[in-house]
Amino acid sequence: MEPFTQRSPRVVGARRLTRRTEREKAGRFLAEGANAVSAALERERGFVHELFVTTRAGQAYPELVTAARAAGARVSPVTDRAAASLSETVTPQGVVAVCELLDRPLEGLLAPAAQLVAILVDVADPGNAGTVIRVADAAGADAVILTGDSVDPHNGKCVRASAGSLFHLPLARARDTDAALDACRTAGLRLLGADGHAETALDQLVLDVPVAWVFGNEAHGLPAEVLESVDEGVRIPIYGRAESLNLATAAAVCLYGSAMAVRRSSGK
Amino acid sequence: MEPFTQRSPRVVGARRLTRRTEREKAGRFLAEGANAVSAALERERGFVHELFVTTRAGQAYPELVTAARAAGARVSPVTDRAAASLSETVTPQGVVAVCELLDRPLEGLLAPAAQLVAILVDVADPGNAGTVIRVADAAGADAVILTGDSVDPHNGKCVRASAGSLFHLPLARARDTDAALDACRTAGLRLLGADGHAETALDQLVLDVPVAWVFGNEAHGLPAEVLESVDEGVRIPIYGRAESLNLATAAAVCLYGSAMAVRRSSGK
Repeated sequence: MEPFTQRSPRVVGARRLTRRTEREKAGRFLAEGANAVSAALERERGFVHELFVTTRAGQAYPELVTAARAAGARVSPVTDRAAASLSETVTPQGVVAVCELLDRPLEGLLAPAAQLVAILVDVADPGNAGTVIRVADAAGADAVILTGDSVDPHNGKCVRASAGSLFHLPLARARDTDAALDACRTAGLRLLGADGHAETALDQLVLDVPVAWVFGNEAHGLPAEVLESVDEGVRIPIYGRAESLNLATAAAVCLYGSAMAVRRSSGK
Repeated sequence: MEPFTQRSPRVVGARRLTRRTEREKAGRFLAEGANAVSAALERERGFVHELFVTTRAGQAYPELVTAARAAGARVSPVTDRAAASLSETVTPQGVVAVCELLDRPLEGLLAPAAQLVAILVDVADPGNAGTVIRVADAAGADAVILTGDSVDPHNGKCVRASAGSLFHLPLARARDTDAALDACRTAGLRLLGADGHAETALDQLVLDVPVAWVFGNEAHGLPAEVLESVDEGVRIPIYGRAESLNLATAAAVCLYGSAMAVRRSSGK
């Protein structure tokens, strides 16, 4: 079979998915690179619709092609240029999967036993969102919720930064931040808002309780009304002279702080 | 005074400092943006040699111009294009300081009371190095040491990612990683190597002791011989399904883990 070129209708159609509006319309997005594709193929049957693969990538990652066929996905050979046209990286790996959108409704997202959730409010940078999703996954979070004006987690840069974690965790988007906070409150989670100006410092806090950490925009932090809604604003103590931490490292300290405290107190 | 253009000899000379070899030769580097310049101007008199500033930036940050004059730095008005030619960002702020290189010899770097040090071995990405320096500063680290093939911390992207922290902390570079490990050992620090494959997990460790955390390259981790030299290899426990954390978030968890444990056990 002749590989598809960048002008083949299937490739042209898939390329539209690099735009948010087209993703919403189609209900699909692109996962690029061996790590992301591999994680996508571990999802339920039917989740990956199509795998675009170059000759070279097919030789480098034969297990992905096998897994895609086994999962019932269409496997479409493409030229290097066609693969590059679907890619948002400088050095494309030549494997791109067309997947179902990942987010679910808030309702039913959280199991009653949920212990740790990350909420991102108005997070603008897709790389940051992806990195926080990766950290949340590593810390064993039960879900991630993106609210307000947050970036689309299906954005190519977010998919890449999450290093596969996007496919591991239940994920929801909620325009209305209050609805997300309510869902967590109903699930019995304590709401902690990360805020550099908060009175309470992380090291003064009893952390071994079920918690939803709420993180704000990279430049502006959390909106005042969100800080009023959470149970407590919490700052990471700055022991040196730095003014602050960036979003991803702050999230790492908070999420792991909670995850390790819960396991310490339960004797693991 | 007419502002310097991008062809003025002073600007041409300063622009050379965007290259590592030229920085080594001149013993100087560029700090760009209001945050970095402000932190640079808090250093000792003579540390900032010259401040290039556009008309607009002079109006936006008059305090920087005043501080530069007070610190004995030459203040040089430049055109927008000249400032952009010294800048490595997409939207230059129009303030660039020519500073003394920051690194010191290993010898004498660590006070006998040093509690927390970060060592970066072969760290390649300047943004990562800068972010780890920022985290180390926030966690109250006593010093940061870059060894082996690590990126030059005076690289523009590293300066920016450190958000001023580069100017806050004692900093050394050592081609020879062993020399850095020895210096920390002599200072009474326990050497912990961050390693995703280590047997010991962070949450099994007694962390309230003086420690040097050793972090490796983004892709390859720590070299085998470094892992053999440290007192203990330590992995961050992965409670979910992520394969790993990225360098900056891993460093945040480790450095804050130590910083908070020390303060917890001393009752702050």
